[in-house]
Amino acid sequence: MSTNASQLERLTFFSDAVFAIAITLLIIEVHVPHLETRDDQAYWQALHMLQPSFMGFVLSFLVIGALWVAHHRVFGMLVDYSPTIMWPNMLLLMTVAFMPFATALMSSNPMARVPELFYACTLLVAGLLQRLLFAQALRAPYIKPGISSEDIAATRWRSLGLPTAAAISLVGAWCAPGWNNFLLLSIPVLVRAYAAFGRRKALRLQVVPVES
Amino acid sequence: MSTNASQLERLTFFSDAVFAIAITLLIIEVHVPHLETRDDQAYWQALHMLQPSFMGFVLSFLVIGALWVAHHRVFGMLVDYSPTIMWPNMLLLMTVAFMPFATALMSSNPMARVPELFYACTLLVAGLLQRLLFAQALRAPYIKPGISSEDIAATRWRSLGLPTAAAISLVGAWCAPGWNNFLLLSIPVLVRAYAAFGRRKALRLQVVPVES
Amino acid sequence: MSTNASQLERLTFFSDAVFAIAITLLIIEVHVPHLETRDDQAYWQALHMLQPSFMGFVLSFLVIGALWVAHHRVFGMLVDYSPTIMWPNMLLLMTVAFMPFATALMSSNPMARVPELFYACTLLVAGLLQRLLFAQALRAPYIKPGISSEDIAATRWRSLGLPTAAAISLVGAWCAPGWNNFLLLSIPVLVRAYAAFGRRKALRLQVVPVES
Amino acid sequence: MSTNASQLERLTFFSDAVFAIAITLLIIEVHVPHLETRDDQAYWQALHMLQPSFMGFVLSFLVIGALWVAHHRVFGMLVDYSPTIMWPNMLLLMTVAFMPFATALMSSNPMARVPELFYACTLLVAGLLQRLLFAQALRAPYIKPGISSEDIAATRWRSLGLPTAAAISLVGAWCAPGWNNFLLLSIPVLVRAYAAFGRRKALRLQVVPVES
Repeated sequence: MSTNASQLERLTFFSDAVFAIAITLLIIEVHVPHLETRDDQAYWQALHMLQPSFMGFVLSFLVIGALWVAHHRVFGMLVDYSPTIMWPNMLLLMTVAFMPFATALMSSNPMARVPELFYACTLLVAGLLQRLLFAQALRAPYIKPGISSEDIAATRWRSLGLPTAAAISLVGAWCAPGWNNFLLLSIPVLVRAYAAFGRRKALRLQVVPVES
Repeated sequence: MSTNASQLERLTFFSDAVFAIAITLLIIEVHVPHLETRDDQAYWQALHMLQPSFMGFVLSFLVIGALWVAHHRVFGMLVDYSPTIMWPNMLLLMTVAFMPFATALMSSNPMARVPELFYACTLLVAGLLQRLLFAQALRAPYIKPGISSEDIAATRWRSLGLPTAAAISLVGAWCAPGWNNFLLLSIPVLVRAYAAFGRRKALRLQVVPVES
Repeated sequence: MSTNASQLERLTFFSDAVFAIAITLLIIEVHVPHLETRDDQAYWQALHMLQPSFMGFVLSFLVIGALWVAHHRVFGMLVDYSPTIMWPNMLLLMTVAFMPFATALMSSNPMARVPELFYACTLLVAGLLQRLLFAQALRAPYIKPGISSEDIAATRWRSLGLPTAAAISLVGAWCAPGWNNFLLLSIPVLVRAYAAFGRRKALRLQVVPVES
Repeated sequence: MSTNASQLERLTFFSDAVFAIAITLLIIEVHVPHLETRDDQAYWQALHMLQPSFMGFVLSFLVIGALWVAHHRVFGMLVDYSPTIMWPNMLLLMTVAFMPFATALMSSNPMARVPELFYACTLLVAGLLQRLLFAQALRAPYIKPGISSEDIAATRWRSLGLPTAAAISLVGAWCAPGWNNFLLLSIPVLVRAYAAFGRRKALRLQVVPVES
């Protein structure tokens, strides 16, 4: 068991490192303005022009941060892992590593439809891979003893929050490119709603056999 | 308990990785001169022109280094963490990840007021977030047993050093852009003074009930 | 023993970090298009032009990912390490760190022979160094007790998969540059075939003395 | 004690991460040629032009690798650390993080005197800081029990290898810029000679009191 625990730790570690690097690399796609003047007005304007880049940085930082927090929560529930999660995890990391590109494409071409679709698509893929990974990881022999089935159900369900929001944002990108990103603000609400729903459903399932 | 300990370790690890990446990325914003000549004089001049970049690199390295040392000290005092610190920590990391941009903006436009204000502002935000994080982390059930209340008070108080210095530097950036960074040299002094003050205050609080 | 275990852990950790950084840096070689138009067609075309870069990113991500998975598997079998593996490991990491360059060279110059040869060569060197490292690491006093000799034989043999595929791809790069990368799809098959062969051979060796 | 052990681990970890990032960032300073032709000859020539960059990458990879191996060896001898090593360690990391710049300056301007002097100087500073760090770290209460004083002496002495070679290379850079890097090949020899000398000296010191 301790073998698997240390192997799980290393898998977690590698994943953490990729999350940390991708989240930090976001900033190098924000190009530093270099002005020849010392006129304050020119600088305020240059910073104002960078506003889409700043917003993209903050948005993607929060999204990757949320993906990491969820990964952290789920892997904290495990004592072991099925070898089948290795590649779904790797593909999730690939999408995370791809985020700096999708972000920069969107930020460098503000309000353009295709970059917004591309960004929403990247989020959707990340969300679906995360969902797949968590469904495979949170299985019977691998879960820490003492974790209630409601908690597991809530954790599985909450991972639907990101793909749902990303799918809505994808549709929004078609109609109102740029503004669609505000739809992503629904993620915290969706995640909580899904978690509550999953938890209630798990409780109902437990109660049924007792009643029947 | 061991569950939380390992989750705390992973949170610490992820934070360390972001600190380490941000601190190392500082260098890639220093642009490498490429001269067609082999004339020594031309090279010395090119290196001389890079002086603001070198100073920005050293300054930000020391600031991020100090932020990490403080993070290291505080998290070394914990055995567990409140879930409420997750997002203040993430926002602190966001500011740290943003530092290479703020540094490069300042270094590429030496002595210009807006970039200096921007840099001082970034430091101020980092300092305030760090203060908030430490205030939330250093709470009763999460602290390692055996750590004296003076040490905790000193640690909480010393985190006022960076935001104080950053606020002074922000004012200085308005009056004497560029030179204001020398005000940051007061950080070690301020930190020590605050720590001593906090420690004395905690001791006085303990002593009072004994005397009365 | 615990000394060596913690030193092994740190070696593993450092290696993991280099793998994680190299795999994430792949994306910064994909240049973000910046168009002045909002015409959808122009964006689709710009993304279409990036297709070789996307394919290079995915291919190298999978290759570095596979190298990491193998490293993870082998180091999970060890309790200690011979100091002789330090430098083969460092050279393997050097080749991994070099991958972003080889990938970008290939992606920026699609279907050109020399970049394809260069990329296949880099893979071949990585494969041979990995093979050398695993042969030195998987030795008697360093292996965890309880791991069967078949498993060890299978692990040693499977590391021939990458260099074999890379050598075939190198020949293919000469004849059909660009298309040769499809030959790398044989890696999972080759790895499995080699592992099965090694396992069978190890079993036969064990049986022979019994029969004679 | 376990507190300090885990704090030591985190310090080690942060240092490892900076080493790993700096060593991997070396590659992004090697600029990828982008040719419009498919003529093989043009590609071979472009790669040939990159030779100084490749050599710089390999040289700095080996130097940072060697710095990490030494750091790994010394910190593996510790059970605790004096707070006084925190900032020498941070300054060593700063020099390591600076290496990609010094390397790129040298590689982009091959055979030019000032960049070679600059590179040798960076190595010298790194070597001296490492020497200082190890001298402070390898002190009585912090060393693991059971490590012989000869081993400690050898480890302290061998850290003179890099600064000696860097000082020689600095002089060489003045006379024969570019060629001076071959002097760095003496590092493995110097390190071994210093270690043997330190070990012998420690043994003699132990023997003397017995004889007298």
